Amino acid sequence: MAVSPRPLRELLRVPAGGGLDLGRLDPASTPAGPPDKAAGRAATAAMAQPLASLQERLYAASTAGDRRRVLLVLQGMDTSGKGGTVKHVIGLFNPSGCRIQAFKAPTPEERKHPFLWRVKKALPLPGEIGIFDRSHYEDVLVARVRELVPRSRIAQRYAQINRFEESLADDGVTLVKVFLHISYEEQRERLLERLDNPDKHWKFSSADIDDRTLWPAYQEAYELAMERCSTGAAPWFVVPADRKWYRDWAVSRLLLEHLEDIAPRYPAGDFDVGECRARLLAT
Amino acid sequence: MAVSPRPLRELLRVPAGGGLDLGRLDPASTPAGPPDKAAGRAATAAMAQPLASLQERLYAASTAGDRRRVLLVLQGMDTSGKGGTVKHVIGLFNPSGCRIQAFKAPTPEERKHPFLWRVKKALPLPGEIGIFDRSHYEDVLVARVRELVPRSRIAQRYAQINRFEESLADDGVTLVKVFLHISYEEQRERLLERLDNPDKHWKFSSADIDDRTLWPAYQEAYELAMERCSTGAAPWFVVPADRKWYRDWAVSRLLLEHLEDIAPRYPAGDFDVGECRARLLAT
Repeated sequence: MAVSPRPLRELLRVPAGGGLDLGRLDPASTPAGPPDKAAGRAATAAMAQPLASLQERLYAASTAGDRRRVLLVLQGMDTSGKGGTVKHVIGLFNPSGCRIQAFKAPTPEERKHPFLWRVKKALPLPGEIGIFDRSHYEDVLVARVRELVPRSRIAQRYAQINRFEESLADDGVTLVKVFLHISYEEQRERLLERLDNPDKHWKFSSADIDDRTLWPAYQEAYELAMERCSTGAAPWFVVPADRKWYRDWAVSRLLLEHLEDIAPRYPAGDFDVGECRARLLAT
Repeated sequence: MAVSPRPLRELLRVPAGGGLDLGRLDPASTPAGPPDKAAGRAATAAMAQPLASLQERLYAASTAGDRRRVLLVLQGMDTSGKGGTVKHVIGLFNPSGCRIQAFKAPTPEERKHPFLWRVKKALPLPGEIGIFDRSHYEDVLVARVRELVPRSRIAQRYAQINRFEESLADDGVTLVKVFLHISYEEQRERLLERLDNPDKHWKFSSADIDDRTLWPAYQEAYELAMERCSTGAAPWFVVPADRKWYRDWAVSRLLLEHLEDIAPRYPAGDFDVGECRARLLAT
């Protein structure tokens, strides 16, 4: 495994406070990654065991009162691979400890509440790995691009998000916020693939083409959201995602680095092993 | 793959109406199964692709209004392998289409409601694979053995469960109710394993030993529950579970047979492919 000794999260992290230019980050690049697809797939597969093992420790610790958990937030343009990441990366974990929530356009019921309401209901419990496929960030992305609320409200929401995420961090949630960065050209290819395969038509909407006219506005909205909301408590990571094998490797690696940092431990039993052994053998 | 031409679900199904004697079903047997562990593991792995493919079709169909879905109910004594089944069998699916709920002893809030209340909140949505690790059956199992409610209430609950499950079936839910059948001796071995490995102490409770004194009462409660609630709409299956590889193979196979029977299909797109293609290429 050709892994840089420097943690990937330092390399891909969006600096707090400004200066993010997505146009200068190549979506086809593979920073610190394996040399090619075969090596990348193998390196990702090799992380399955340590990831599942750390997940089990995290879950076990929660049974003894440890409130720590992980929340992976996935954002990105249509076809950027949010669903594929869930399938290939979250598929490495034990499904029983994963809590996955996909956020669509808000329902009439959800619209009646503050924008963080539906997010708070879907948070991972202690010991779990939570996964958001889209998230509260839609409320500063599509909401900005489509002008669903005034610009002043968007600015307020950045602050609300930062306070919210800081409170999550205080409550033991390790946030891993990932932007899957694809190119305009790669999106066209992926949409064409969907059009050309009838088994993928259910994933396609003609509105996806209309949305491409808003590409620059979305890139700008992402830059602003990540600049304003990449904090010490909850940083953003930009993962180049034109190459699916690199995307899966990088997200797996980011999760591994964060889980290793949490370093969850199996709790001690609250029983006398010798006595239990004797009683059990007598049954 | 040494698979009997007769569907496994016919072989393992509990006949409606009575006459189930768990003592006569060998928990170490491997009916219609592969010849050994290696072949069993390989046969299970070979089901991953068709299972995930059928799951994707089921999910895709739901986006066009198909309400069908699957609900796997897992029951069994402590250490029977409910958690292992979720890990190894549900791990074959795309995690984003799985809705997993583990039911513990009811919380004070849950106790205020009818016993089916918490179950109704955890049902799979159309297109999903739902998994219950324990279920509403606890309310006719532990409730009977521990005499938490009068016997007359237990009899009423069988009828309530049957009506409830029939209404689910009418609403497109394919129920696959599985009892993981282990032997008294195998449970002792598995509890010893947990005692002897400090990394497994978090799974152990000394109450698990006390519960073994109630083994015959539990077996009787399971027999009654399955006799009364193995219906045409929602049959029970007894899966011999002393051999983990057979358990995983059999549950995977049961799910495959049911999904093949559902035969979900990708929906047709509601757009003009040629026109979309031209518009897309112009972007």
